[in-house]
Amino acid sequence: MREVGLRDGLQSIARVLPTGHKLEWLRAAYEAGQREIEVGSFVPPRLLPQLADTAELVAFARTLPGLFTSVLVPNLRGAERAIDAGADLMLLPLSASHAHSLANLRKTPDEVVAEIGRIRAARDAAGSACLIEVGISTAFGCTLQGRVEPAEVLRLLQAVLDAGVDRVGLADTVGYADPRMVGDLFGQAFAVAGERLACGHFHDTRGLGIANVMAALDAGVTRFDACLAGIGGCPHAPGASGNVATEDLAYLFASMGVPTGLDLARLLALRARVAQWLDGETLHGTLWRAGLPRTLQPAAGEAA
Amino acid sequence: MREVGLRDGLQSIARVLPTGHKLEWLRAAYEAGQREIEVGSFVPPRLLPQLADTAELVAFARTLPGLFTSVLVPNLRGAERAIDAGADLMLLPLSASHAHSLANLRKTPDEVVAEIGRIRAARDAAGSACLIEVGISTAFGCTLQGRVEPAEVLRLLQAVLDAGVDRVGLADTVGYADPRMVGDLFGQAFAVAGERLACGHFHDTRGLGIANVMAALDAGVTRFDACLAGIGGCPHAPGASGNVATEDLAYLFASMGVPTGLDLARLLALRARVAQWLDGETLHGTLWRAGLPRTLQPAAGEAA
Repeated sequence: MREVGLRDGLQSIARVLPTGHKLEWLRAAYEAGQREIEVGSFVPPRLLPQLADTAELVAFARTLPGLFTSVLVPNLRGAERAIDAGADLMLLPLSASHAHSLANLRKTPDEVVAEIGRIRAARDAAGSACLIEVGISTAFGCTLQGRVEPAEVLRLLQAVLDAGVDRVGLADTVGYADPRMVGDLFGQAFAVAGERLACGHFHDTRGLGIANVMAALDAGVTRFDACLAGIGGCPHAPGASGNVATEDLAYLFASMGVPTGLDLARLLALRARVAQWLDGETLHGTLWRAGLPRTLQPAAGEAA
Repeated sequence: MREVGLRDGLQSIARVLPTGHKLEWLRAAYEAGQREIEVGSFVPPRLLPQLADTAELVAFARTLPGLFTSVLVPNLRGAERAIDAGADLMLLPLSASHAHSLANLRKTPDEVVAEIGRIRAARDAAGSACLIEVGISTAFGCTLQGRVEPAEVLRLLQAVLDAGVDRVGLADTVGYADPRMVGDLFGQAFAVAGERLACGHFHDTRGLGIANVMAALDAGVTRFDACLAGIGGCPHAPGASGNVATEDLAYLFASMGVPTGLDLARLLALRARVAQWLDGETLHGTLWRAGLPRTLQPAAGEAA
């Protein structure tokens, strides 16, 4: 599981969380067992002032042993900053919806593919080991455009593989997917990308987030994005609220015996702290209300 | 889909919804396409004053052509009232957890099985066509007892089939199930009960409700309980909040092309009305916030 609350989560919330709180979040997430965290975006601060301290967060993340540090970059300029900062992975968004691509990046999907090729060349020229991952967003539909053809998603998937990316993922940016769509598209995408298909990113906008994760898991996906407290959303995709909640997803895997290395009690404690910091914002997730079941707390009573 | 909001939902809410509102709910649910509705329980009014008007609701439900009317009954006395009222189906709860069975019905599970045998005899003696369905509750765990052994669930399943019930279902009363548990237990239960296994009842207490429905659907279940606005819970099972929300489940099926006969826009309109009536209560569900996706609204724009 990759925690994306500090990036996808905070970008959707207008208030600026102080850097001190972000560092505390990062450390507590690490102590709860999270080992891959997207700490921010290298976008111009005038566009997303919430994420202006990304370089500082990457620097701190690099001091935590074994933490894999991910950042989002929208273009070559951002990629250069990610390489300079020493991130382990840069996530490049590529929207399968032309309408969303133009709204979000002011480029067509094929212009983004060309930029990805330039980023790959720059990464190699710099002698950097920073992995390049492309997240194909709006892969299951788009609030601006409506339907997104699976054939277009698969065409773009092939194009970014040809451009030399290390990993790809599929994202349901606006919560339009259902489990059948997820099983079908991931199945087809695995046939194109093989093990380079390495991430599922789901929003719970319409209640199907966890069911979609299950469908992707059944299709062979072993790495998922999630946001603590289910925050998250794209500023240029209306109604794109609510990533799957880290704590709910961690509970799903714990209940099924799928190892994640996460400490659920610590995650719930961190969620409570983040909820205080974000007091007044709309948060999501379900587990925090009921607590862990007795069956996952063999030594103790029912969680409060 | 069987709507159980008027029973499982309202029994968990202390305030008494006026009969007029319940009749309005019933009619609007019918107009939204719901064709099986659990309208109440025949329990002593001093225990659940919220459901004291069940006979009146059954009488009204019988005037709606093609509506299949379900009521919950806890014992022989309640069964006699269901038969007298002319309900189409009586749902008998049987808890697989001894602790929950004693707290809820003050009987052991085997004493309940014996009562079910008496109910079957009374139904036949009355010449009634009222179907007898047993819902095996806490089938996936219990907040009072913790773990519930699948072998005990299957033993009780066989016992009620031997007692002559028409249908059985499995219920995750307290939200302890995960999709793997659901697939496993329903698979084993189908081997025992065949097509008499005819209902899945899931709570979304810890966020896995819809994923559990998917697992049951994949295991062969074709009939599910749900509550509008995700209300619901057992008064004697601490923390048993939140049935899967009717509107979210209807959206899941609509998106996947599974026919339900439901009109999603009407369901959402009814949800808004019920939310007004229950102002101040904790409601659940996700779809109402974002509205239907464009892809399910080909002729119109994005839902508000």
